[in-house]
Amino acid sequence: MGEEWTWRYEGWDPAAERLREALCTLGNGYVATRGAAAEASAGPVHYPGTYAAGCYNRLTSSVAGREVDNEDMVNLPNWLPLRARAPGGPWLGPDDAEVLGHEQELDLRAGTLRRRTRLRDAAGREVELDETRLVHMGDPHLAAQRLRITPYGWSGELEVESALDGDVRNAGVERYRDLNGRHLTDLRTAVHDAGTGGTGPGGTGSDSSGSGGAAHGSDTVSLTCRTTSSRIRVAMAARTRVVPPATVPATAATTAPAAEATAGRTAVVQRFVLPVAAGRPVTVEKTVALHTSRDAAIGDPLDAALERVAAAPDFAGLLAGHTAAWDRLWRRAEVRVPGGAGHVLRLHLFHVLQTLSPHTAYLDVGVPARGLHGEAYRGHVFWDELFVLPFLNLHLPEVSRALLMYRHRRLGAARRAAAAAGRKGAMYPWQSGGDGREETQRLHLNPRSGRWLPDRSPLQHHVGSAIAYNIWQYWLASGDTAFLHTEGAEMLLQIARFWASSADWDPDCARYRIRGVMGPDEYHDAYPGAERPGLDDNAYTNVTAAWVLARALELAAALPAPRRAELFERMALDRAELDRWADVSRRLRVPFHAGVISQFDGYGELAELDWAGYRARYGDIRRLDRILEAEGDSVNRYQASKQADVLMLGWLFPPAELAALFRQLGHRLDDATWTATVDHYLARTSHGSTLSGLVHGWLLARSRRADAWDHVRQALLGDVADLQGGTTGEGIHLGAMAGTLDLVQRGLTGLQPREDALLLDPVPLPGLSDFRLSVRYGAHWGVGLTLFCGRLRVGVPESDQPPLRVVLDGRTRTVAPGTDLSMRLRPH
Amino acid sequence: MGEEWTWRYEGWDPAAERLREALCTLGNGYVATRGAAAEASAGPVHYPGTYAAGCYNRLTSSVAGREVDNEDMVNLPNWLPLRARAPGGPWLGPDDAEVLGHEQELDLRAGTLRRRTRLRDAAGREVELDETRLVHMGDPHLAAQRLRITPYGWSGELEVESALDGDVRNAGVERYRDLNGRHLTDLRTAVHDAGTGGTGPGGTGSDSSGSGGAAHGSDTVSLTCRTTSSRIRVAMAARTRVVPPATVPATAATTAPAAEATAGRTAVVQRFVLPVAAGRPVTVEKTVALHTSRDAAIGDPLDAALERVAAAPDFAGLLAGHTAAWDRLWRRAEVRVPGGAGHVLRLHLFHVLQTLSPHTAYLDVGVPARGLHGEAYRGHVFWDELFVLPFLNLHLPEVSRALLMYRHRRLGAARRAAAAAGRKGAMYPWQSGGDGREETQRLHLNPRSGRWLPDRSPLQHHVGSAIAYNIWQYWLASGDTAFLHTEGAEMLLQIARFWASSADWDPDCARYRIRGVMGPDEYHDAYPGAERPGLDDNAYTNVTAAWVLARALELAAALPAPRRAELFERMALDRAELDRWADVSRRLRVPFHAGVISQFDGYGELAELDWAGYRARYGDIRRLDRILEAEGDSVNRYQASKQADVLMLGWLFPPAELAALFRQLGHRLDDATWTATVDHYLARTSHGSTLSGLVHGWLLARSRRADAWDHVRQALLGDVADLQGGTTGEGIHLGAMAGTLDLVQRGLTGLQPREDALLLDPVPLPGLSDFRLSVRYGAHWGVGLTLFCGRLRVGVPESDQPPLRVVLDGRTRTVAPGTDLSMRLRPH
Repeated sequence: MGEEWTWRYEGWDPAAERLREALCTLGNGYVATRGAAAEASAGPVHYPGTYAAGCYNRLTSSVAGREVDNEDMVNLPNWLPLRARAPGGPWLGPDDAEVLGHEQELDLRAGTLRRRTRLRDAAGREVELDETRLVHMGDPHLAAQRLRITPYGWSGELEVESALDGDVRNAGVERYRDLNGRHLTDLRTAVHDAGTGGTGPGGTGSDSSGSGGAAHGSDTVSLTCRTTSSRIRVAMAARTRVVPPATVPATAATTAPAAEATAGRTAVVQRFVLPVAAGRPVTVEKTVALHTSRDAAIGDPLDAALERVAAAPDFAGLLAGHTAAWDRLWRRAEVRVPGGAGHVLRLHLFHVLQTLSPHTAYLDVGVPARGLHGEAYRGHVFWDELFVLPFLNLHLPEVSRALLMYRHRRLGAARRAAAAAGRKGAMYPWQSGGDGREETQRLHLNPRSGRWLPDRSPLQHHVGSAIAYNIWQYWLASGDTAFLHTEGAEMLLQIARFWASSADWDPDCARYRIRGVMGPDEYHDAYPGAERPGLDDNAYTNVTAAWVLARALELAAALPAPRRAELFERMALDRAELDRWADVSRRLRVPFHAGVISQFDGYGELAELDWAGYRARYGDIRRLDRILEAEGDSVNRYQASKQADVLMLGWLFPPAELAALFRQLGHRLDDATWTATVDHYLARTSHGSTLSGLVHGWLLARSRRADAWDHVRQALLGDVADLQGGTTGEGIHLGAMAGTLDLVQRGLTGLQPREDALLLDPVPLPGLSDFRLSVRYGAHWGVGLTLFCGRLRVGVPESDQPPLRVVLDGRTRTVAPGTDLSMRLRPH
Repeated sequence: MGEEWTWRYEGWDPAAERLREALCTLGNGYVATRGAAAEASAGPVHYPGTYAAGCYNRLTSSVAGREVDNEDMVNLPNWLPLRARAPGGPWLGPDDAEVLGHEQELDLRAGTLRRRTRLRDAAGREVELDETRLVHMGDPHLAAQRLRITPYGWSGELEVESALDGDVRNAGVERYRDLNGRHLTDLRTAVHDAGTGGTGPGGTGSDSSGSGGAAHGSDTVSLTCRTTSSRIRVAMAARTRVVPPATVPATAATTAPAAEATAGRTAVVQRFVLPVAAGRPVTVEKTVALHTSRDAAIGDPLDAALERVAAAPDFAGLLAGHTAAWDRLWRRAEVRVPGGAGHVLRLHLFHVLQTLSPHTAYLDVGVPARGLHGEAYRGHVFWDELFVLPFLNLHLPEVSRALLMYRHRRLGAARRAAAAAGRKGAMYPWQSGGDGREETQRLHLNPRSGRWLPDRSPLQHHVGSAIAYNIWQYWLASGDTAFLHTEGAEMLLQIARFWASSADWDPDCARYRIRGVMGPDEYHDAYPGAERPGLDDNAYTNVTAAWVLARALELAAALPAPRRAELFERMALDRAELDRWADVSRRLRVPFHAGVISQFDGYGELAELDWAGYRARYGDIRRLDRILEAEGDSVNRYQASKQADVLMLGWLFPPAELAALFRQLGHRLDDATWTATVDHYLARTSHGSTLSGLVHGWLLARSRRADAWDHVRQALLGDVADLQGGTTGEGIHLGAMAGTLDLVQRGLTGLQPREDALLLDPVPLPGLSDFRLSVRYGAHWGVGLTLFCGRLRVGVPESDQPPLRVVLDGRTRTVAPGTDLSMRLRPH
């Protein structure tokens, strides 16, 4: 399969720069770096940002006269400044020079970004700047840049400046700019003596010349600061060296031009003056180490950063280690799809892997909705892990486990939130801040009307079911019973308890009801005209709650007796409560109307929207809620969804499991009802969420509908084409990206990891029917699944493990390690 | 079995206070608190200390004109001050009042310390102070005190003062007192408004009145600081309330006397003036919350501490939750031994469990040699985990895993240390500081001679084998293949590589040799008169290295092929290197002399010591090294051991495994050789380490020697009776304590967890032949092993797991969940 591994943009286009920047962000799970082509200029296009996983700040701002408590993913000091100019002239960049050519290329396989710009300055001198950068996947504390500068048609001198700049603010999201964007304080800079700063791993390199100093011959500088409210200390150390051109004898290496370094109040700068000759490139290498006070196994972050940068190899060495680490990662998460879809999927995989990399397994971080790629949503943790973990479980289960442990560390906060709401169990927040508290903004702005409206999304309690689902799926994929019986059980049972305590018995309909909630569809946050927020009997909420309760009961029965005893005692959980859970799990209300599942009680009585009219009038109606509010109307009045809600059930549960779940609830969900339900909501959804295309594509692929591909295509293009018109520039949509990978991995293969076997049921999409992936399942690594020409081949690598059991078309087969098995698929 | 669960001291004895204090330290894995009876006084007996796991500081001191780099477990602010006096009089304490009675009682089951003191002040007023304290096992961030004060024969007023005191220093170890003992800086104190400070879980409680302020009616105060060099921020918040006596109507509760609080520079103090009546107790409750900047899932530590203390229940509620948590813990780590041995073992278990508690699973901390019970060894991490993990593996495997992950996070440091020493692989340090670097002092003092001598113990590279042994044992007990194949393999293979690269081929003896090392026996650090430090062919080092190499090869062969490929590639490990490992594992030199294994090459040529003469002259010769050095001689000249070295092999490996290991090395280790070896070294050991009695007792019990019990008794009494004459007051010996529990658990039962079965081979000691323990093995929790009247009963609690396989006397039996099996033991 021919594979395209680069993502390339040509030409200088300031208007497109923010989107490109988000899509070309580099990261390694610990930190992510974006930087505009123009960061060498002082011009208006200037959005560099380095975000470290878990570096949050709480900010309290007054908006529209109301206080807004919030967490912010902090923009760290900028490590990218590396620029050149003719002595006395302006810095070479698109603002002050003519752009003769510009190209940027993200190399997915190598995990590098290369940008080449050819410029002509006011004096007519032509220069090519050729920069390659990496954020190291082998050592998460390192990043590096290599800048090659070639003068064309002239010789003389060039001045090069390399800096660490702490004068940064969070400014990546336009509508947040009224909030305080400065989150760094206590800035200190220093220049370090090259003699000790470069002594290698043994040196401490901490003999700083102090803030405000200057030194000659130094190659290492540092900057420390702390975040204003979370008080996380951040230290960066940078080593910049000029690499003599290859034509200079090797012995001259030690006489490479020395830097003059100046430690300022908010930045530390190194300057080199280099003799340059026409057509002969000079190379500058900058290596940066980052440590924060959240890092384990270090003393002071500054000492650690200085030691690390001193011990780092040169750029070629860093690049070799970095690409080798990426190579291993690509093998761990192999998803090979040919053609254009494969090209987009590789980009998605790249961003998923660099946001939630193997390093994430060692951090206390959650799944950031927008990756570490931008400031939108302020780094809050929503339910996106529901779209991410099922993919990761089968490649990097240790990362899934760490992400579940992130939730476990915040179980106390979720329990306090439930108690404060008068419920039992654990109520996980819709937007989780660093300490696990609800950080959803209390008001949000409708830019169309200019009105600040209450934000009721904290009623999206279904996030708890997402966590429970992931616990179960992680266990099935990994076989990590120790986790399931300990932290997994602690969360699952508390989430189940929350659902049971949220359900009220209604004698009128002889059903339990969960009232006053929001489902995934954010258009509906109340009944039309109602004072009371939220909706009753949201089908998605209730069906997933019933599933959670059933799994909790299953687990409670399976636990080893001593563990069950201690857990029940600690939770004060008894047989009577379990009986109630069982009762609720069978009698939660699921409303229906006109032969389809109702999104919530009363949905069928809402008005029908004039979809064609609104489309004609507004064109883009994805934010129908804002359009209607600005008209003085409300989307709450209509049978209109922003995104899949009821239909999400068909994404979470394979058909047989969904039917069984409805049976458990006393309903018969036949194919006709489900098909009618799908049709009903498909016709009434504006696709205002990036997740809609994904869910709909998945469902329609499984029911072999011709229009499945349109939806899948929407999902694939979401970020790449910035379908939401500008939101990608504020950060990629991680859930949607991971979801497209899972669409291939589970959606099209029908792959279901079970306790004792892998279930498979491929439904190849036309145009996406030949592909290969390899998964980790229990102690089997790299189990290959290849779909090609109507056959499925399962290959199990050699190991000392027992044979793998595979179930296809109801038949169980075993595949011994070191062998493979090829099966013909039933023709569809 | 009648069981004594309290540890009681009667009478006021300042001379014994430091020992009692160490043995009565309370902790919960996150923090440990000791506090002398006299902390209410300003007198000379004043050693309070709170140590938080992982709170280290690097200190650099100049001793004897040489620089000593070191890490120090930091003495945190003192949360204990809670004292009373008659207005105007001196604080009630042993310094200024007559002690009529004093009793302190450590309740192991409940995890509380109670101290009752009856005093008569200068004015003849009698008062009883009855204090109970706890360090919460359910919530590691909480601790609490309840003080009941009863006046006898008089009525009037009492002034009570409660404080948080940051004016502390590390002063618990006399010989360190020349070093800088102050490790806290940036102290800030504050008084918090009772109205918001006590609003419960939702309140932020952060409206501090600022440092230096004073307030009336406040019940909450706080103190924050940071450690001087490691810059860890520490925040404590204290809530003190007077509980009205039960005879006062309940409605008066809200009119309890309000405090006057003063926030000073280094301390914050609350004062209450209470009316008291003869014979009527008044009760003061103090609750303290502690957070540090190393905590996950919090924002600022001060906010977190204030919220936590505000949400904490009253003392009775805290006590109930605390004892319930301890009750669960006692069940998880059940070791029931009757009689006096059982009483001591319960104390040991208490200290092991509160140092390495379930909370430890969530921290980046290692096994502190002296617990969190004192400042000796400065919190460094040695090899003590070798004596601790085999016990923990079978009760709290998640804690074992976390302790192994502590080592994994420091694998980079160990690899850099190996590289700096010109070796390959990972060289773990003898004394590991917080960042994993070697922190052994470079000089140590012989108090007898007053001379500072070089400390060569960093040559104890065998610590790497201890880590490898624990990885393997943890895997066997837990079945955690995912760990073994990932972090476990990464460490094990790098340790194996270190051994292979440390071994030089000697054509003269046609063997590989590892030269210039120290074994566990610290008496020998060089050949007599040699300039070169270290010894060659230390038998313990070489045999364990051969074992490590064999396990690494076994694991390398068993790894799933894709994982093997990525690991080998990352390590640049190839077939040729594995072949060399195999060769080294079979041909490492093990020296023998006079029919016994030599401790090292040339050991047999050393002089014999006049043991009787030295015993007669010095009495206690445990520190024979110091005695000889002071005499101008050197212990290096003699066949004299401080502790078991060769004999440790018989502790690590059951007889059959040890014999196989010698066979692997081309030697025949028959019973006669081993018995002769045991006799040889037993006669030449001064038992200068607390671990000797343990190892010797274990070996002799297995060879059914009558004197086994003497050694076991020494091991049991090590700390309880402070056999080392004062060292227990500087912190308990955690390895020895855990080792005595393991002696029962593995030594006397012959228990060996294997991949597919539990092996058992009981050898009951006379006087320790009836006992019961329960272990966790794989997914089986609470597997009961009961030895009683020559029978062994194995009980497997109900679960959905497959039956347990047990091997006894070469016969395999299965025990289904929910059943048990009783077997008669072969008579011995």
